Parts: sequence; C-alpha cells; structure tokens
Amino acid sequence: MAYVNPSGEFNRDQRYIPTRITADGRDGYPVEPGRYRLIVSRACPWANRAIIVRRLLGLEDVLSMGIAGPTHDERSWTFDLDPDGRDPVLGIERLQEAFLARYPDYDKGITVPAMVDVPTGQVVTNDFSQITLDLSLEWSAHHRPGAPALYPEELRAEIDKINRFVFSDVNNGVYRAGFAGTQEAYEKAYHRLFDRLDKLSGLLETQRYLVGDTITEADVRLFTTLARFDPVYHGHFKCNRNKLIEMPVLWAYARDLFQTPGFGDTIDFVHIKQHYYVVHRDINPTGIVPAGPLLANWLEPHGREKLGGRPFGDGTPPGPPSPAETVPAAHGAI
Amino acid sequence: MAYVNPSGEFNRDQRYIPTRITADGRDGYPVEPGRYRLIVSRACPWANRAIIVRRLLGLEDVLSMGIAGPTHDERSWTFDLDPDGRDPVLGIERLQEAFLARYPDYDKGITVPAMVDVPTGQVVTNDFSQITLDLSLEWSAHHRPGAPALYPEELRAEIDKINRFVFSDVNNGVYRAGFAGTQEAYEKAYHRLFDRLDKLSGLLETQRYLVGDTITEADVRLFTTLARFDPVYHGHFKCNRNKLIEMPVLWAYARDLFQTPGFGDTIDFVHIKQHYYVVHRDINPTGIVPAGPLLANWLEPHGREKLGGRPFGDGTPPGPPSPAETVPAAHGAI
Repeated sequence: MAYVNPSGEFNRDQRYIPTRITADGRDGYPVEPGRYRLIVSRACPWANRAIIVRRLLGLEDVLSMGIAGPTHDERSWTFDLDPDGRDPVLGIERLQEAFLARYPDYDKGITVPAMVDVPTGQVVTNDFSQITLDLSLEWSAHHRPGAPALYPEELRAEIDKINRFVFSDVNNGVYRAGFAGTQEAYEKAYHRLFDRLDKLSGLLETQRYLVGDTITEADVRLFTTLARFDPVYHGHFKCNRNKLIEMPVLWAYARDLFQTPGFGDTIDFVHIKQHYYVVHRDINPTGIVPAGPLLANWLEPHGREKLGGRPFGDGTPPGPPSPAETVPAAHGAI
Repeated sequence: MAYVNPSGEFNRDQRYIPTRITADGRDGYPVEPGRYRLIVSRACPWANRAIIVRRLLGLEDVLSMGIAGPTHDERSWTFDLDPDGRDPVLGIERLQEAFLARYPDYDKGITVPAMVDVPTGQVVTNDFSQITLDLSLEWSAHHRPGAPALYPEELRAEIDKINRFVFSDVNNGVYRAGFAGTQEAYEKAYHRLFDRLDKLSGLLETQRYLVGDTITEADVRLFTTLARFDPVYHGHFKCNRNKLIEMPVLWAYARDLFQTPGFGDTIDFVHIKQHYYVVHRDINPTGIVPAGPLLANWLEPHGREKLGGRPFGDGTPPGPPSPAETVPAAHGAI
C-alpha cells in the first residue's frame, strides 16, 4: 500500500487544501449564504463530523450538502446516488472535477468533506479538522436560534488537547491498525487504540461528555469513530480486543450521542459498511460486505441522564432532518 | 478460489481415504496398540475432534499423536514444531510424505486428522468423521476405565441427525460464509448458520448437552466450531451477526464444555488464530493476525450445573494431559 512507510506503519497524508471560508473573507472566500456546497459521503468518518456539526448548528439552509456514494474507484468519490449520476447543484460526476477546476495538476487525495464554491465550481478546502471549527466560529451569524456552542473559547484548550489524543490514537488509530503493513506496526496501533479507549472510558464514567457537561466538538469527533467501531473497525481493521458493546461506559456514551438529535440521524450503516469493505480490496479482496452486526441495540436506553449535564447547554436540539437529507430507515439502527 | 463453484458457493472436497482401522482388521488395518499415529494440527477444527475424543477415551498410551504446526504452504501441513522439523516417530517433514507413501499419485487434499501406520509410514485414513466414531467403537478394548460412551447405540440415530445439521450449517457453514465467492452465497451461508445456532440455543436452554444429559460425539463436533467462533469465524469469515459471547445459552454451553477435562485443555488459541489468518491469504492478504479477542472469559462460571446432567454419565473425567501434550498456558484462555 502506498501509504505504508518502510517500517510498516500507516501514514495519513495530511496535506489538505488550507484555504478557509471566513467571516472576513481573508482567503478570498467570505461566509455567504447559498454560495458554498458541502460535499460529503455518509460513509466517511471525517465527513460525518461536518454533517453532524452542520445539523447541530442549523446551517442546512445556508450551506447545501451533496452526498457522494459510499464506494469509489481510484479516482475517488462519485455522485452515483444522484439520479443522473451528477451532483444536481455542481453538475459534476466526480468530486475530482471540483479539485481539478481549481488546481488542474492536483495530485493529492480527493477527500471528503470538501467545501466547493458553487459559482466557480472550484473546491475551496478539504481540511476536515478546520471545516467543522469554522462552521462553529466563522458561520456564527447564520447559526439557528438555540445552536449549541461546540467550540467555546473557555473550553478550547481542553477540547484541542482531547482532540489530539483522540485523533492519533482513535480516529486515525483504527486506520493505523487496519492498514498496518507488519504485525509489529499493527500490534502497536492496536494497543495504543485500546489503551486510549480505556482512558476515555475512565473519564466518561463520571462525566456525561468529554469536556464539561454539554456536547462539544470533542464529542462529535469521538462519536464518528465509535459509530463505525462494531460494524467495520472491529473486523475489517482487526480492532478486536472487544466490540464497543463490550465496553459499558463507552457504549452507553455512544448510544447517548446516537440518540441525540443531529448525531444518530446522520449515520448510514449501509453506506459505512459498503464503503470500507468494497473500497479496501487490499485487505478485503472479495469485496463481500458482512451482513452483521445487529444494530438495533443503538436505540436501547443508555442511562447516562443520571450523570446530569445538558447536551445543548443553554441551547436546544435541532429539529429533524429535511426529507431529502433523511437517512433511509433501513440504513439506520435496525 | 478453486473450491468455489460457479454460483460462488464453497464446496468442501469430501473425498477422504475411506480405509478404516477396525477391531476385526477387515480393511487390513486392525486396531493394535502402538501401531498407529494420529497426526493433527491443534488449529484445525476437524482434527480437534480427534484430539478431544482420544483424550476423553484415554487412548493416549495406545495411539500416539504428532502435532503439525499451525501454518502451512500449498503442500500442506509440516512438522515445523518438532526440534529438527521432522515428526519424531515417522521421521517425515511433511504430512504429504505419508500420503504419497501409500498413493504415489495422490492429488486430493493433505488433511488432518490423519491416521498413519507407523511400520510402513503410510497414511491409513483422513476421514475425520469416521475416525472419531471408530475411536469410540473399534478401539473400545483399549479405552481407559471410566471412559464415557460418546456414541452409544441407543442415541446413535439422534446423534447422527444432529451431526448432519451441525456439519452442514455450522461446522462447514462458517467456511461457506468465509469462502463464499459472491455476496449472495455469503449471505445464504450466514443466515443458515445463525438460524441453526438460534435453534441449537433453543434446544440447549433446557438441556445441558445436545443429546441426553451426558456428553456425546455431537457435543464434541459442535464445540470445536464454537471454540473458534470469536477468535476467527466472527471476523475472518464474517460470521458477525454477533459474537458467541452475545448468545447467552450457547456461550454458557461452550464454557461448560471448555471447562470439562478433555475439551478446553486441547484448545490452542494461538495456533487457531495463526492458522486461519496466515494460511488464507486470499481473504487476508496481509497475513496479519488479530491481537484480540480477550479470551479469559472462557474460564468464567457457566452455571449450567443447574440443568442437571452428568458430563461423563457412569464414567469419570480423564486426568490431565501428559506434559508433552499440554497446551502452553500462554496459548490457552488468557
């Protein structure tokens, strides 16, 4: 695999397009209702963050969303879910076209989430970790009434600290395990992952959310990995010390978030499983997608209310997703 | 894969060498203490049956056992665990040599368990389902005092019936799922497997063993698949509706057997995992062996005594295995 270094360790190419969409437009892309389109795949954990944050903040009416299909070839994400195989707003078949529209020689990863400037059809950024922070900070003039503060000033240092651990050991840790080129690199990633999960479990035993008593960006980032844990990472990436459902604290925490408006209603388990098992032929040559696991247990009571906390702080939950953006019931927790 | 038919279904080649070792020697191979050697791999579920039955019946002193290493190449099982890479009794490096000694043009599978005639070095039979029955019926003059009746006349019809279902849907069913060449063939095998497990779970809810209230050949055959379920079949063969530990009745039943002398003391989880994940490069190209799952839970109390039953009927449990045949503690339930 091209992304495995000589010692067998998976290295994520983290050279994303650093342009930012900001309130003051200093990079040439000012926040503007209706101007940009967020391109995602529901399969992808990095894109899933942006889907959740957009929902929580109520940005649906000012920032449209295009959904790529769960599987792709070496030329990356395509709009094969759309009736004629083209994104209805951008008119393109492949996300690659938006990247090439801006950089004709672009040779790095065509990744989601990506923010695309609709008038020019050019990608603005695919820097997933900045995108969600900017939705919180730069798009605040357009947040819905009651939108939660996901990245408040006073908690930022703590959120950043947790995010760093969670990224390296968990979000990216599962990939390190799954794409390891040697037994040694795999086992190192496996132990780092579960050591970190044990620590997070300890933290969450007495507090409802990762930072303080309301949901923040830190919870969004951990959640998208936990949602994929049993359906994909446990088997496909060999993260199999145990299933998530065998870790009572983390499993209750994950269900709590899943059942919170804006989290579970973004999860498409069918897309998630298809993506990983079909795309990664180097670790699943047959492309056969497991029929399991049973997922209805995501809807079971979690009992975390007893820890107190108010998920939305002084704010309110978002309403249901629009019909066009609703995950089919058969793709949810059934 | 050569063993997948055009509709994508895995077909096990069931043409085994049908010669039998019998009390009357009608096939030219009479039961005789010290004459034969049972060749096994601890990894293999079919060989594991013979290891268990030999232990339960106390045949260790009259039928020696050679243990092949867990992994092998296309020429099949080798004696790479033995100090000089040769079976100390047969003096061969590969089990294949015993097959070729009898049939110079032998072109079918070199499989374990295999019974080898020590004086000639020739394989007698590799017909795994007959081997264990013959250990019960033909070797009875050499059973230890207190050996259980694993295949008693009056229960034979019922044992045979259960064995047929268990073979096609469970023992071989996991292979059908794991080696399916199409999504459709895989899903068919997956549902057959779990439907059967659900039925077996229903049966075992009110009775301690599969047939009557003592252990029989039927329990031996189900057990060797259940022991491999979470470490291998769940992930590697995509039998992932749930782990065995999520099926309370079957899981308690499996632990009950595991903790019964002659069952769990034959299980080498390290060999089991290495075999499947290293040998099947067509479904695990990296050859990386998962570090999980945790296995100490096999030693937890099972509570099945409350159902009554006497594992050994009027007989007694076997003593501990000899030091030479003891599975290293680090390969057991830790």
